[in-house]
Amino acid sequence: MIEGYTIPCLDPGFVRLIDHMGTDQRVVEAARLSYKSPSKGDESDKKLIAYLYKNRHTSPFEQCNITYNIKLPLFVQGQLVRHRTQRLNQLSTRYTEMTDEFYFPDVYRVQDTKNKQGSLVADMSADWHVDQNRLMQDTCNASYKAYLTLLESGVAKEMARMILPVNLYTEIYSNWDLHNLMHMFTLRLDHHAQLEIRVIAQAMFDIFEELYPWTAEAYKKYKFVVQELSN
Amino acid sequence: MIEGYTIPCLDPGFVRLIDHMGTDQRVVEAARLSYKSPSKGDESDKKLIAYLYKNRHTSPFEQCNITYNIKLPLFVQGQLVRHRTQRLNQLSTRYTEMTDEFYFPDVYRVQDTKNKQGSLVADMSADWHVDQNRLMQDTCNASYKAYLTLLESGVAKEMARMILPVNLYTEIYSNWDLHNLMHMFTLRLDHHAQLEIRVIAQAMFDIFEELYPWTAEAYKKYKFVVQELSN
Amino acid sequence: MIEGYTIPCLDPGFVRLIDHMGTDQRVVEAARLSYKSPSKGDESDKKLIAYLYKNRHTSPFEQCNITYNIKLPLFVQGQLVRHRTQRLNQLSTRYTEMTDEFYFPDVYRVQDTKNKQGSLVADMSADWHVDQNRLMQDTCNASYKAYLTLLESGVAKEMARMILPVNLYTEIYSNWDLHNLMHMFTLRLDHHAQLEIRVIAQAMFDIFEELYPWTAEAYKKYKFVVQELSN
Amino acid sequence: MIEGYTIPCLDPGFVRLIDHMGTDQRVVEAARLSYKSPSKGDESDKKLIAYLYKNRHTSPFEQCNITYNIKLPLFVQGQLVRHRTQRLNQLSTRYTEMTDEFYFPDVYRVQDTKNKQGSLVADMSADWHVDQNRLMQDTCNASYKAYLTLLESGVAKEMARMILPVNLYTEIYSNWDLHNLMHMFTLRLDHHAQLEIRVIAQAMFDIFEELYPWTAEAYKKYKFVVQELSN
Repeated sequence: MIEGYTIPCLDPGFVRLIDHMGTDQRVVEAARLSYKSPSKGDESDKKLIAYLYKNRHTSPFEQCNITYNIKLPLFVQGQLVRHRTQRLNQLSTRYTEMTDEFYFPDVYRVQDTKNKQGSLVADMSADWHVDQNRLMQDTCNASYKAYLTLLESGVAKEMARMILPVNLYTEIYSNWDLHNLMHMFTLRLDHHAQLEIRVIAQAMFDIFEELYPWTAEAYKKYKFVVQELSN
Repeated sequence: MIEGYTIPCLDPGFVRLIDHMGTDQRVVEAARLSYKSPSKGDESDKKLIAYLYKNRHTSPFEQCNITYNIKLPLFVQGQLVRHRTQRLNQLSTRYTEMTDEFYFPDVYRVQDTKNKQGSLVADMSADWHVDQNRLMQDTCNASYKAYLTLLESGVAKEMARMILPVNLYTEIYSNWDLHNLMHMFTLRLDHHAQLEIRVIAQAMFDIFEELYPWTAEAYKKYKFVVQELSN
Repeated sequence: MIEGYTIPCLDPGFVRLIDHMGTDQRVVEAARLSYKSPSKGDESDKKLIAYLYKNRHTSPFEQCNITYNIKLPLFVQGQLVRHRTQRLNQLSTRYTEMTDEFYFPDVYRVQDTKNKQGSLVADMSADWHVDQNRLMQDTCNASYKAYLTLLESGVAKEMARMILPVNLYTEIYSNWDLHNLMHMFTLRLDHHAQLEIRVIAQAMFDIFEELYPWTAEAYKKYKFVVQELSN
Repeated sequence: MIEGYTIPCLDPGFVRLIDHMGTDQRVVEAARLSYKSPSKGDESDKKLIAYLYKNRHTSPFEQCNITYNIKLPLFVQGQLVRHRTQRLNQLSTRYTEMTDEFYFPDVYRVQDTKNKQGSLVADMSADWHVDQNRLMQDTCNASYKAYLTLLESGVAKEMARMILPVNLYTEIYSNWDLHNLMHMFTLRLDHHAQLEIRVIAQAMFDIFEELYPWTAEAYKKYKFVVQELSN
């Protein structure tokens, strides 16, 4: 996988690989430093990675980094930014006049009544989807038009942007070590996470898996589940 | 200052004290642990705090914490959340139906042409301000009406909220240690910071100053400035 | 439990409560902020805490803090300091002339041949234990005597301390939020952790449990275990 | 500068470059993302880096990383580990039988009576230096001999190591982003820092400067100094 490799998602969004540091071998190297024991070949190294992951020896995975360039809606970025262990740069709406790029879903989901923060794909008519989409598009277009009018009247960008909706696209550089990246995957690839951030997280995962196949294999093989202890 | 003390700002926003841990004496205690030397009275303790701050011995200030409850617009929270050293809980727009509370400035600022991310208070007519305000209010009202319509049509809250603008109010619990709090003050009370976050940061500062007068005095007495070295 | 409460451990070590912020109710409050829903009484609040813990909603637990004062051997502190989310002050061996307090175990453990970083309590004679203890004591006494001689010769404390062994006692102030504290407990109460840090972690846990009984109950009820997925 | 480049220091210690991610251009790229403005050539990019550093726009510097492999005495590592923003792996004295490598200074410094945690190079006789060195060497040799005896008696490595002195060598992998690396340099290249950590930090700096010449130039050009404000 070469730098610049791009996965389009949440059109016109994308996840692009900017750079990475280290390979699976770096994880092995960092772990073997603790033990002062030399490598015994690929099969043994691969097993070591699985052992480290399974037994929560997380620090060797922090020796590798991936930097992504991501274009995504503001409300998804608002969820991603809560992961404080990434290193982040973001497009400034104080500095830059925003273009009219907003996220509109293809399929509209209805409220999940059991999980109050969730949503469901329901069997609604094609017209229903068209109606919701038209209302969202009209609203965003009107907001964007008002934004331009405010700018033309001389209002500062940092003020005019206040009326822009949270499905506006932003762009980030985001640098993660593998341990904290995998922790984010666990939370954001979960079916409780909002579909839109799962799509972004999946694209980030696909790049991760290409770059660190042994680590990704260990991640997929083992799952941390909660167990209720009897008294 | 008692818990629950509230400073209204960015109406209907506020900064409220939920709790704090330690006093100036805790900072002194933590510092004296390093030296194994007993206190020599208040004047000497106050001087020690000034010395610690001036000489960047930051760790004793991390032994005290303040928890705030803050109601503020989403775009201000988007700046505040970048300070990764706070511990944060936030109102969920996935879970909760939002009320129609948006931030509208009293005074509209024009674009600063020198500082491209800044704004200026200009000598505009009263009518001009009224016009900008009306446009922002109308736009937000229309967006909110569309939000309600989407909800009534059965669209999930996590989707309907996508068209809400970033001047919508949110609410947080935010827990800081004093060292990282003062670092945030330095960046967000600066005149380059957007007025709206300066107002929030100032209210946070006022509470901090009341609780930790010696530390606040040291903070105000010393300023870290950049110096250009000759070759 | 009152501030100053002290649990002696690894004699002459101890774990002492300096302060704490919040109670189980603060966790509940921070969680309910996200949902904007009022409390429905104690039983329901207790269940909410169990739900949050079980489902890895970790941020409400970050709103509470405990500050400990701990006296412990340097090598145990060397393990504890790896938990980067605490806020820490430590006795300075550059500044302070150290007293001759070293940790000597009551029971000497033999090398575990299966777990190369572990140890086992073996069926050795009383004499064997006495012999090991005498050798350790004699060595530490000789090192300490050399330390004093270096100081008397005028050698700086920061240099003389270089020959002091890692069972020397140090003292810290250590401030944790509950989420990161519980994460540390999971790693350091585990049977793979060295006995000495488990003893310290257990004393920290006992204080935590007294202060936050509902959170501690949730912690003890649920365990995150690794599951191997079939292909 | 190629990977594996090694600077011997605190013999038999060293600082070795394992890997790095990004160049000065990455810092520029990350900063320009915020502004959506294209590069105007090298001179302008270099000025941008100086501007960012001078004005504390620190986040673009977090997009680059350096991984070092360092061999250093335990007491120096005890200072370095306090910088919580690095990602760290360390040789385990629980797992590995240690070799008899200890740090002995060439020149012994006397206690600074003004700065109680500092030391001074004094005009002592050659004999004096030889005496201090012999005492330290004899003490460490005796401790190491006792360590081997304990191991031979069957005592677990994690227990036997308790009597090893803090000038024992350890080895780490240490991964830093540039912002936090430069912050560490400011604290550890300062003349108040112990000479031994300054030597390590200087070698880390030399590698940093080779890899990121524009950033290092900005770092050296600007200094943040404390200013006392009049009332």
